[in-house]
Parts: sequence; C-alpha cells; structure tokens
Amino acid sequence: MSCMLMKKNKKELTFAMKNIFGAENVLDTYEELYTYSADSTNIVNSEEIADVIVFAQNAAQVSKLMKYANQNSIPVIPRAAGTSVCGASIPKNGGIILNFSKMNRIIEINKNNLICKVEPGVVIEDLQKAAEKLNLFYPPDPSNLKVSMIGGSIGLCSGGPHTFKYGSTKDYIIGLEVVLADGTVIHTGSDCSKDVTGYNMTQLFVGSEGTLGIVTQATIRLIPKPEAKRIMLAYFDTLEDCSKTANDIISNLITPSVIDMIDKNTLKTVEEFYPCGMLTDKEAALLIEIDGFKSALSEQYNKITEICKKNNSSYVQTAENSEDEEKIWIARRSSFGATAKLAPNVLTEDVVVPRENIVPLVKGIRKICAKYELKTCIMGHIGDGNIHPNFALDLRNPSELEKFNKAKTELFELALSLNGRLSGEHGIGSEKLPYIDKAIEPNNLKLMKQLKKLLDPKGILNPNKIFITESM
Amino acid sequence: MSCMLMKKNKKELTFAMKNIFGAENVLDTYEELYTYSADSTNIVNSEEIADVIVFAQNAAQVSKLMKYANQNSIPVIPRAAGTSVCGASIPKNGGIILNFSKMNRIIEINKNNLICKVEPGVVIEDLQKAAEKLNLFYPPDPSNLKVSMIGGSIGLCSGGPHTFKYGSTKDYIIGLEVVLADGTVIHTGSDCSKDVTGYNMTQLFVGSEGTLGIVTQATIRLIPKPEAKRIMLAYFDTLEDCSKTANDIISNLITPSVIDMIDKNTLKTVEEFYPCGMLTDKEAALLIEIDGFKSALSEQYNKITEICKKNNSSYVQTAENSEDEEKIWIARRSSFGATAKLAPNVLTEDVVVPRENIVPLVKGIRKICAKYELKTCIMGHIGDGNIHPNFALDLRNPSELEKFNKAKTELFELALSLNGRLSGEHGIGSEKLPYIDKAIEPNNLKLMKQLKKLLDPKGILNPNKIFITESM
Repeated sequence: MSCMLMKKNKKELTFAMKNIFGAENVLDTYEELYTYSADSTNIVNSEEIADVIVFAQNAAQVSKLMKYANQNSIPVIPRAAGTSVCGASIPKNGGIILNFSKMNRIIEINKNNLICKVEPGVVIEDLQKAAEKLNLFYPPDPSNLKVSMIGGSIGLCSGGPHTFKYGSTKDYIIGLEVVLADGTVIHTGSDCSKDVTGYNMTQLFVGSEGTLGIVTQATIRLIPKPEAKRIMLAYFDTLEDCSKTANDIISNLITPSVIDMIDKNTLKTVEEFYPCGMLTDKEAALLIEIDGFKSALSEQYNKITEICKKNNSSYVQTAENSEDEEKIWIARRSSFGATAKLAPNVLTEDVVVPRENIVPLVKGIRKICAKYELKTCIMGHIGDGNIHPNFALDLRNPSELEKFNKAKTELFELALSLNGRLSGEHGIGSEKLPYIDKAIEPNNLKLMKQLKKLLDPKGILNPNKIFITESM
Repeated sequence: MSCMLMKKNKKELTFAMKNIFGAENVLDTYEELYTYSADSTNIVNSEEIADVIVFAQNAAQVSKLMKYANQNSIPVIPRAAGTSVCGASIPKNGGIILNFSKMNRIIEINKNNLICKVEPGVVIEDLQKAAEKLNLFYPPDPSNLKVSMIGGSIGLCSGGPHTFKYGSTKDYIIGLEVVLADGTVIHTGSDCSKDVTGYNMTQLFVGSEGTLGIVTQATIRLIPKPEAKRIMLAYFDTLEDCSKTANDIISNLITPSVIDMIDKNTLKTVEEFYPCGMLTDKEAALLIEIDGFKSALSEQYNKITEICKKNNSSYVQTAENSEDEEKIWIARRSSFGATAKLAPNVLTEDVVVPRENIVPLVKGIRKICAKYELKTCIMGHIGDGNIHPNFALDLRNPSELEKFNKAKTELFELALSLNGRLSGEHGIGSEKLPYIDKAIEPNNLKLMKQLKKLLDPKGILNPNKIFITESM
C-alpha cells in the first residue's frame, strides 16, 4: 500500500502537484503510476506504486516540491531514465516520482575551461556527442548510454567500459546544484576542477542514489578527445590465460581504454541473436580498445597481440574500419539484450573484486549457477575486477525466482569472500539492501545512517535504498 | 594561552600521553612545543602553542588518544611533515599535536591490483620511488614531495604540476582507516578502485584537513608508469600569448602531463640564485611536459613547438637529456626557495580560476602587488587555472605584514570575482578561514558545519580550521 494514502488525501496531493508543476506535468492514473513505478530491475512488486508522477522543469519547482513533501512527510523518488538495475528508482513506500526527463538541457559547454553544465535529464550519449563536436570527451559510458541520463548516472556513480582508464562518473562531476530535503538549494564545488575550498560536498551526493539530496544541475569536467582508437577481440581457451593476458598488458605499461572480458555463454548467446562473426567455441574473449595518438597505437597493438599469443590466444580479431568497430561494440553492448532472448526476464548483477581474484570469481559464479540450474552469461570489466553475470529467467515461475535469490546471496558472499564488494557501478538500491550489513562494517554503516538522518531527518528522500531508512 | 591549561593539569596530560604512546614518544619542553607548533606557513603566533607532542605508532594508540581527548575536551591536531602553507597544522587553541612521522611504512604494493597501502607518515617521494621500481606511478606531486607526507596530502587534498593530466590526491585515495573523534575506528572504501557500495565516505575525509577524523592508513590506486616523457620551456613576451598557447595546445587534443606558467619575476629570481640557463628578459615561460609512449612524443613535441611559435614564442628550450630535465625541474621547484632569498620570509598563496580568466588574474595580482609595494614572484599550473604568488617579505616589519594582509584580502576578492576559488591545492587551514564566508554560499557552509558537528560534537579535531569551530 502506498505511503501517501495513509497520510494525505490523494486528491489534495495531485492538486498541490499541479499547482507547483502545472497540470500538464502531473500524471496520476493507475496505468501511469504503475508504469513509472518500475525501473529496469525487472522485478516489479505491484504493491510498490507511486501516488503521483511529476515532471520538473527547474530547480525552483523542485525546491517547492521538497518543502511540501517534507512538511507532509511524503517520499520523493527522483527518476531520470529509470534504467537502474538495482531498484534505485522504485517507490518502495509510494510517494512522488520526480521525473527529470523534461530538464534535459545542455546549458553550456566551455571549451577553454574544459567544463560543461547540464540538467539531470540529458541523455549521456547526447552529452558525449555534443562534447565530441568540440573535440572534447566525456568518458563515462554505461552500456545503456543511448537512453540513460546524467542525473541517474550521478545518483548511482555509473561506470562503463572506459572506467579502467578514465574513471567513473564521480571523476567528472566537479559541482552540483542540489535541493535538500527541506527545499533548501545549495551549490557545491565550482567551475574550477582543482578546488579544495571547504569539504568535498559534491562527492557526498554523487553515488548517494538520491537519498541525501536531489541534483538539479551538474558541472562536469571534460577532457581533450583522444585522437584515435583501435579495437580488438582476443580469444582464449582458459579463463586463466584470459586473466593473465589482462595483467600482462597492464604490466607492459599499456593502459587500454577498455579491457573487458566476455565469457563463452555470452559469446554463444550474442552470436546466436546478433551474428557479428564472434567465435563461439572459446572459453572467453578479451575486448581491448586502445586510444591516444595515432602514432602510438601500432606499437601498443603489436605489443598486445604478442602478449595475447604468448598467453595462448588462438585468435586476435582486429577492427580494420569503423564498421568492424561498431560491430564489436554492438556485440559487447548486446550481451544484456541477447541474454533477454533466452528467457522472458534478464536480471543483471554487478560485483567487483581486486583484479587478481577475477578467475576464482568467475569460476565461483559458474559453480553457483550450475548448482541452481540457472542460465547465465558472464561479462565484465576485467581491468577493474568488475563482473556482470546476466541471469536469464522466467519470473512467472516462482521456483526460478527463489533459485535466483539463493544464487544472488551466494554470489555476494563469494565476492565479499574474495575481498570484493557488492557493486562496482550499478549501485545498491533496494535490490542489494539486504546484503549491505555484510559489506560495510557496523561503525561505518552507522556513520552513513547518521549522515542520512542529518540530511533527511524525516526519511523522505528515496527511502529504503542502500539501507533501511530508520526515520520512516 | 593554551586550551589545555584551562582544563586539566599539564602533568596529568603528559602522564596520560606517556601511558598511551610510551615515554620516548612524548615531548613537552617549551622548545619542543614551540618548534612543533609551527608549520611552513611562516606566521608563528607564540600564543598558539601545543601542550604536548605525541608520536603515534599505530591506530590503536590513536583510538585511545581520541577517547581520552574527547572525554577531556582537548584539541588534537594531526601533523604529518608540517609543510602546510595555510596554517593547517597550527594548534590554534593548544592541545595535543599528533605526529605521524613514525607511522611511515609502505605496508604493501600489489602490482596486479594496482593498489598500495600506506601509513600517513610515508614521504610522498618515497612512495613514488617504490611504485616506480614496479613500473607503477603515483602522480600527485606537491612541490615539497621530498619531505611532505601522504597523511598531510590526504588532509589537504594536495595537487602538484601533474594534476592537470592526472588529477590530485583525491583521485588516488580509494580507502581509508579513520579514527573518529570518539576513538571509533572505521574503514572506508575498499581494495577495489571501482566501488559504489554505500556513500563515498572516503572523499568526506580527503581534504577535510583533519577536522572530521584522523587518517591512520590509506589504500591508494596506482597506474602504469608512462614509458617516456619530454620537457620543454617556451618563452613569451606577453601573458596573453602564453595563455593562448596553453589553450591552443589543449585544443589540439594534447593533454600535457605538466603545463605550468612561470612569470618574469620568478624567472629572474630563480636564475639569480639557482642559475640554470633560463631567459630572464621574457614576460613569462610555459613549462610543458608530455608523457606516454615514446613513439607518440615527437609528434606532440612538434605540434607544441609549432603552436608556441604561432603564438610568438621567441624561444623554445628542450631538455635533451635527463640532466637538462633535472635542471628545468630544479628551476621550477626552486621558485619558493629562490623567492626566500629576496627577503627573510616568503608567504606563498594559492588561488584558482577557470582557465580563461588566467590573464586577468595574473595582471590583477601584479596590480595589487604594485599598490602595496610587495615583491612577488608568480607561477602556477596554468592548465588548471591555479596560480601561486610567492610574496617576499620581512615580517619583523609590522607594516609589511599589514600590507601583505591587505593584498591577500584583495587577492581573494579578485579570484572570487573571476569565478574562482580560495584554494586549488593548499587548503584553507587557519590562514584563509577569514575569507571562507565569501567563497561558500551560506546554505552550503551551514551544511559543512553540521557535518563537523555530527562527526566532532565537542569540536576537538583540529579546531578552527576551514571555518570557526562552533562547538568550542
């Protein structure tokens, strides 16, 4: 049951929202509420439905909303594209879904200062393309960048294949406009990427999943665009060879812009549904992209090929032109979509371990999946030790969900036992909340909860994400 | 007068400290207290003297100390090498100076995981050299890296010339062991550089100048060492040409590993005291270092030389060997030392503006210095818009200090009027505290103060740094 209904008349709420946002920016039919109450997590609980959806157009409206919500103790769930796969944008306790898709302006790109200012609804690929036109580069590239938005990527501190060389969202956000729980608007950071004036408030909000404040504008650092890049796929008969190749490349002073691993199930599944010439009889492939000055690429390419061969790679496939390149990227980014063809639902997971523990992690995941008879395609960012198993399931079958939940618990236990963490780039949301006590030591978790309490005393900001909201 | 004397018998304090740290790790003669109560800020107030100095050897001792200090409301001032130039390690209200120079172990460097673990007393250059032996690279390089320590650089989020390409301290710290005000020990982050499990507590402490907690261990991300580098100095007759060259280099997709500006006074002063063949009749010089694969350096070098010439550079001087290279670096790093030869004291400042405002900033600084008849050598990291004026003064002359203080106020007003900030890499400490209200909007500052209050209710952690500690 929604939180709202217990506290305030629904009609009154809709009326108040129309007052703030205008009637054209408020939705409240059951179908609309149901639709916007889901994200890409694939597990929808029909009890967890918002009371109203609003589309913000500026920070002033968001400030008014928060004042109202705070006074009336109504949850507010910020939502960008709703592509979260950890339930970060699900209204666990009903309330107001604050949709940012209409705040989608790139306000400014300043080439000399290497910064840009954006609203939270800007699609990541749109920002990348706008930057590219000016020979600039915004590296964070979650796989769903064609639809996912900056606001969500700030909330979840998204990564992507480029993170190994270039870092994740947090490394590019240098300033934020944030609306606090009581409607106060603050501006953190500045237009200077090098700035130590006071505490680093910006990074308190990046990755906090909308639980500490609501981002209404971001100042983003850009970098000069690499002149050229080259992509290759190397195939291996064992995971050990694949992992050793990644280590050896890095030991040879090469920092690939991408170094991703694709396992045999993923190779087979992608090739079946999106044929692009990948070999399907290999244990694993490494997707390696190098970038930088054209003059340095051949040398690195030759070194990498040599290292692959030394580690028993049976075949190194190189993109000879942009068409080949696009093909490899489509293959890589289709792993989720292809897995979705195996069963009605795909649940994607995200764990991270120190890189030297990649082989035991992948082998352990396979063992768990075999135990619970789950179809799984595994891929991930081997350079960062960040692995995504994609589980193909039929959630209409309750026993499959039960098996998946057991497997998930074992997956997180495995990652933690390998000195790893619950999430490298997807966040905790509501889906990993049950495991947070095992991942974060009690005193640190206590401090996080105190921060939440300080910034959101009534517990209305995206409640019950990351950990149980105690104030509610 | 020291805070302590009002609250507890000094003998009792020394006794308690000897109990925790052992007699050999406690100092309390007046000479010792006076010496350790100063840092590199050059302004010593003989009223601001610690009550006791202790040398920690492990986190357990620090935890015991904090329990004692918290119970007895005694300030604790963490201190690494004491090289702060903003008064960050001065005991403004007396108390206990917690010296980390004996906690100086590099605990582990893990080449496969690209991380290391260090204690706060490790000298930055020692870490860089240890990493280099394994073909790894720790980029943050404050000018005093031969003596300054990791602990201080975490507290102040130090930068250095390499920050333009590689980022500052915050970009490399992925986990911390922190002792909180009440003695609780927490561990933030993890051994995974890509980790979004819970709030980013690590960055709450980096740059907080020891006011929120005391760092007793850090997990640091390392990167593969660049294969080669090349250094050059280009001279210009106008600041405009110098600044435009920096912009043009970056617009041409080149990201130099260093792009620093040295003004005419600095050129003259350095050449006078450390002759190394720099031209002294030019308005400014750009020190440019490029790094990466050997095969890509010539192309970049040629492009840069061309850009310099197009922007009227009269002369581009290149390091042809490591000896030349060392000479240029000595010249660059001697700007502080050389300025010190002009007068008994040097006070170094640190402001940052968006890069397009560099020329009005430097010209404005010169105008202020002319107005107050102050000898000033200006240099800085033009790529980041981060400028350091070094003021040569005789502080025995009260009117010089008064003039400096007036100039400083105007300097900060100038930087803020150019959309800049009070500090790019030195921190706020006690020296810039009077200006913090002008730099940070009231609501954001209020939130910072609430964070301080939450983490340090009695206000004992390095009090009166960044802003006035309200709890005291």
